[in-house]
Amino acid sequence: MNTTSNKQYSSSSSLASSALQVLEARWVVPVLPQGMVLEHYSVVTSDNCILAILPQEQARAQYPSARIVDLNEHVLIPGLINLHTHAAMSLMRGFADDKPLMQWLQQHIWPAEKHFVSELFVRQGTLLGCAEMLAGGTTCFSDMYFFPQSVAEAAVQAGMRANIGLLVMELLSNYACDAEDYLQKGLQARDSWRDNELLSASLAPHAPYTVSNATFEQIITYAEQLGLNIHMHLHETRIEIEESLKQYGIRPLQRLESLGLLGPSLVAAHGVYLTEAEMTSLARHSCHIAHCPTSNLKLASGIAPVDALVKAGVNVVLGTDGAASNNRQDMFAEMRLAALLAKGASGDAESVPAAQALAMATINAAKALGQDNKLGSLEAGKYADIVAVDLSAVEIQPCYDVISHLVYSAGREHVSHVWIAGELKYQKLQGQAGIYADIEPAELKEISTEWQTRLSQYLA
Amino acid sequence: MNTTSNKQYSSSSSLASSALQVLEARWVVPVLPQGMVLEHYSVVTSDNCILAILPQEQARAQYPSARIVDLNEHVLIPGLINLHTHAAMSLMRGFADDKPLMQWLQQHIWPAEKHFVSELFVRQGTLLGCAEMLAGGTTCFSDMYFFPQSVAEAAVQAGMRANIGLLVMELLSNYACDAEDYLQKGLQARDSWRDNELLSASLAPHAPYTVSNATFEQIITYAEQLGLNIHMHLHETRIEIEESLKQYGIRPLQRLESLGLLGPSLVAAHGVYLTEAEMTSLARHSCHIAHCPTSNLKLASGIAPVDALVKAGVNVVLGTDGAASNNRQDMFAEMRLAALLAKGASGDAESVPAAQALAMATINAAKALGQDNKLGSLEAGKYADIVAVDLSAVEIQPCYDVISHLVYSAGREHVSHVWIAGELKYQKLQGQAGIYADIEPAELKEISTEWQTRLSQYLA
Repeated sequence: MNTTSNKQYSSSSSLASSALQVLEARWVVPVLPQGMVLEHYSVVTSDNCILAILPQEQARAQYPSARIVDLNEHVLIPGLINLHTHAAMSLMRGFADDKPLMQWLQQHIWPAEKHFVSELFVRQGTLLGCAEMLAGGTTCFSDMYFFPQSVAEAAVQAGMRANIGLLVMELLSNYACDAEDYLQKGLQARDSWRDNELLSASLAPHAPYTVSNATFEQIITYAEQLGLNIHMHLHETRIEIEESLKQYGIRPLQRLESLGLLGPSLVAAHGVYLTEAEMTSLARHSCHIAHCPTSNLKLASGIAPVDALVKAGVNVVLGTDGAASNNRQDMFAEMRLAALLAKGASGDAESVPAAQALAMATINAAKALGQDNKLGSLEAGKYADIVAVDLSAVEIQPCYDVISHLVYSAGREHVSHVWIAGELKYQKLQGQAGIYADIEPAELKEISTEWQTRLSQYLA
Repeated sequence: MNTTSNKQYSSSSSLASSALQVLEARWVVPVLPQGMVLEHYSVVTSDNCILAILPQEQARAQYPSARIVDLNEHVLIPGLINLHTHAAMSLMRGFADDKPLMQWLQQHIWPAEKHFVSELFVRQGTLLGCAEMLAGGTTCFSDMYFFPQSVAEAAVQAGMRANIGLLVMELLSNYACDAEDYLQKGLQARDSWRDNELLSASLAPHAPYTVSNATFEQIITYAEQLGLNIHMHLHETRIEIEESLKQYGIRPLQRLESLGLLGPSLVAAHGVYLTEAEMTSLARHSCHIAHCPTSNLKLASGIAPVDALVKAGVNVVLGTDGAASNNRQDMFAEMRLAALLAKGASGDAESVPAAQALAMATINAAKALGQDNKLGSLEAGKYADIVAVDLSAVEIQPCYDVISHLVYSAGREHVSHVWIAGELKYQKLQGQAGIYADIEPAELKEISTEWQTRLSQYLA
């Protein structure tokens, strides 16, 4: 399955091992129950799963032959889950800044995509995005882009868990010519990775303004038949809502509701403009909002009413959006900004406390994917998708509250180990450069140099 | 002056040298003119100043005997200037999170300060704060706290440039008993560092709600007589304004204006609540607003109208505020958040573009300190306060626009070299731990362990 698993590096002999191991940590934050911090505990993993979470001494006694990983200045958390990105857009990081969404899309991003997007662009761009996400403690991402097959190939190489959106829209692109073509190509791509336990798929109608009612109806049918979730942009800007009112006489969410699209399988990215009634409706239908605070600010889309969404009972998760509108795929930055922004925008300093921001990036996200039985918290029986964060750095001393530290003080640069399904996929030991189990730095360098040259020539 | 300059570490033999050196960089962003990026240029420094900025080959030819520092994947920028912090509060990082300002101050911070603040607390806490700031590319900070003499001692040890606030308020503290006592102690402290070219002082009346009219009048007299600037909190919360209306019948800014406090020497931190007329008045009097976006969000104070302030012609600079309300002293994070938040709050994606955010953290800050003839940009004749940022990391590839990258993609972790007055004060080579010229890691560890233990016991 993993075509490059034999490419290991000098100091990575211990990487990607999945035998019985005891991760002996200064702190464990299992996320469930929310707010819990275990001190001097071990997480025991076997193959791809968590076997037990025990006091350190008990774990050593119970598993005397297990390999011990010493993490005595570290906190273990569940792998972070990025619920809205376009990973291949890593190649367009900082390509067009300081521009509003529609101008940014229509005058910069879409023309460049028309010029460059191909299977190769998507596979290589996604690999670069995976490398960024992995090093920053993200173990799973929900993607939406052209050529989903190429997204899958990159995720497989990186060893990441992914929910891959099968993009559908009415617009011609280098990938497909009409909605039917998108749908068929997407479903065909999905068939190729159905046996890979790290990969799942969602139907990804791009947005209300690029998808017709007829296509939405078809998507609902497929989603029900195949048990897929639905991932789309929704209520990202005021213009989107105004244009829907002009074209359909109703707001986009109302249109989706009347089509029967609202339900627990819907993950709607952004949700910046929502009335109280709409929030109630989202909650009643158990929909999920993928909050993308950085992207919403950067494109001046606005500030999503996260405090009100949470109070209405909507499951809020976090996304980075693509690197062209962020310009990072950094879930630590999104957790921090989500916690800060909810306070500033609502006027309530108790809104989205640190533990809730962490839940949005883990267990809430697992729920949105319908995979909270296997992901999103550190519990026996769940997949061993685990991140170690080293809290010993000078710039984050002293530490009174580990969960606060994860959200407000630490950053992706403090991530030291990333396990996915029990395998160590990334490691950065103190004072050393980070290494990946299955990605060669030279390959990443080649990818970024090649595309930077080509896109720079296009910009010139 | 620097009491520990003989404490150098194994791999730091080249640190703190100030002879003729040529910093040969892939990019130089001099900040003035705004938006300029020089490729393959060198910054030549001699003693504590910048001698010239030249194309690489020309610099080599002109200074054949100079020591060359190879920075071929780096961008050189002026040292960042943090215009509002309470560095000693590093010891209270994450001490009381997710609480509104007045509750946070009155129930958590002030009681703890009453219990712990001493000369030792301030010196050690400030040293820890300096270490954090220095490693993150901050070369100069404007501080406001008790025991300014101890702040100065820490800044001197770290080798940082600082503008040290001489705190004044009516409230009894461990440091002083009344406004007169604060003033006299502050002025006396200042006398001791008057010959240190890295240190300057400001008069720091805490806030309108803690300082009487009579004291403000005294402060104005001293500021004029001694040529000091004034650093204070202003219009941080709605409550502050409401209470002023109750007590004085006017808003705080109006009160300061009637007292004659507004002028080019005033640096007002926060400025979250400002009417259009107030912004016009601030601009007319050439006052400076130290915008602290993270702190304002975290304490739910609100969002400062930065877009409108800039349009009104007010000089906006950036501050981290103390680590108890941020919880970082990270000017990269403040630049990024200032650029993002101005867009989201104003609805204008072109508000505070990257180059302007960088100016706020450099040249605007130098202006606010009245030191823009020597600081804030890379120009011949200015102090060699220079930061190198390594842009080669995987997570920030590719790069189309260096200034965008500095603000939106890179973080403090990419800072590789920090020179202050020509001396290398911090260095982090690829895949190695950072080292300070004049701070021992063991000392920082001891400080954070000791105070963490004491404050944790107090919390328990």
